[in-house]
Amino acid sequence: MKALEEKILKEGTVLPGNVLKVGSFLNQQMDSDFIMEIGNEIARLYAGEDITRVLTVESSGIALAVAAGIALHVPSVFAKKHKSANMPKEVYTASVYSYTHRETYEIAVAKEYIGREDRVLIVDDFLANGNAVHGLMRILEEAGAALVGCAFAIEKGFQGAGDALRAQGIRVDSLAIVDAMTDESVIFRAQG
Amino acid sequence: MKALEEKILKEGTVLPGNVLKVGSFLNQQMDSDFIMEIGNEIARLYAGEDITRVLTVESSGIALAVAAGIALHVPSVFAKKHKSANMPKEVYTASVYSYTHRETYEIAVAKEYIGREDRVLIVDDFLANGNAVHGLMRILEEAGAALVGCAFAIEKGFQGAGDALRAQGIRVDSLAIVDAMTDESVIFRAQG
Repeated sequence: MKALEEKILKEGTVLPGNVLKVGSFLNQQMDSDFIMEIGNEIARLYAGEDITRVLTVESSGIALAVAAGIALHVPSVFAKKHKSANMPKEVYTASVYSYTHRETYEIAVAKEYIGREDRVLIVDDFLANGNAVHGLMRILEEAGAALVGCAFAIEKGFQGAGDALRAQGIRVDSLAIVDAMTDESVIFRAQG
Repeated sequence: MKALEEKILKEGTVLPGNVLKVGSFLNQQMDSDFIMEIGNEIARLYAGEDITRVLTVESSGIALAVAAGIALHVPSVFAKKHKSANMPKEVYTASVYSYTHRETYEIAVAKEYIGREDRVLIVDDFLANGNAVHGLMRILEEAGAALVGCAFAIEKGFQGAGDALRAQGIRVDSLAIVDAMTDESVIFRAQG
């Protein structure tokens, strides 16, 4: 998605530790019209796939999942990171290690929101090491739901998780794939 | 908003501890078309108010803030609950006590995303004891930004926080106000 690559070049910042900061439009602050454009693009890519649910993990994936859900006219569901007092007792859970926060956390989805009949699209803002998406995939397996594909705004191609998923035969659509980045430049993978 | 009251009666559940569970459409699972309807209704209420930013706190407010931002064509910003490794150093912060989790947490917004020139609409899924909204209001004060109003999907009228804000002269729009609830019934306040 050319517009996303341009936005990353214009507003993104590379921080130490291979962090690509895009908080001005994609996560902490959401450029609403642009988020909806991304949602529409994801819906276009998965048109005809009979998606029944969009699944993400809190909290930076929620905005894109909501936009994709609106564009696809299907519910979006988010996995919670900590069990909260009003979390239904019946939940699917998976453990996820976060490199950013250097800790393992539990993600959980109430069983009532994902079932065997579902055809699910996983959506997230970033694909980096793939730990979060693997946690979501374990939840879908437990639920017996079908994973139709994974759509990300930005894939850190140099970390390899996206290509590993593709090698497993999983459909992965990343609207921008960063193959290398330095303080001065961000190199995108050419995509069809 | 009649449609919201009907949805609460149909899909909501009252749990012990005055919890109104609406996870099937409003927070853990988002009914996308309905979330967009709520966003459009909030935009209608604040048309002509020159809103420049929608502000919420992660994570259950994000879906509505995104929808309201899309409908108003302005950015939405969410306050983070914990300082993360890629949080910019320059942040506004406030302490918020959560009755649900029985703990005090910090909320933070990067200074670059809210400024003196902003006219801000606070959006959240619930107004209960008002602690989160007061935290967001302290952040706006610190930023020198104008608070135009606060829009909630559901206000727990019986907890009094909404009326206390209104008594201070703050504009509060709640699309459904619950004045009483029991296992068997939810009573809504009549609104113009």
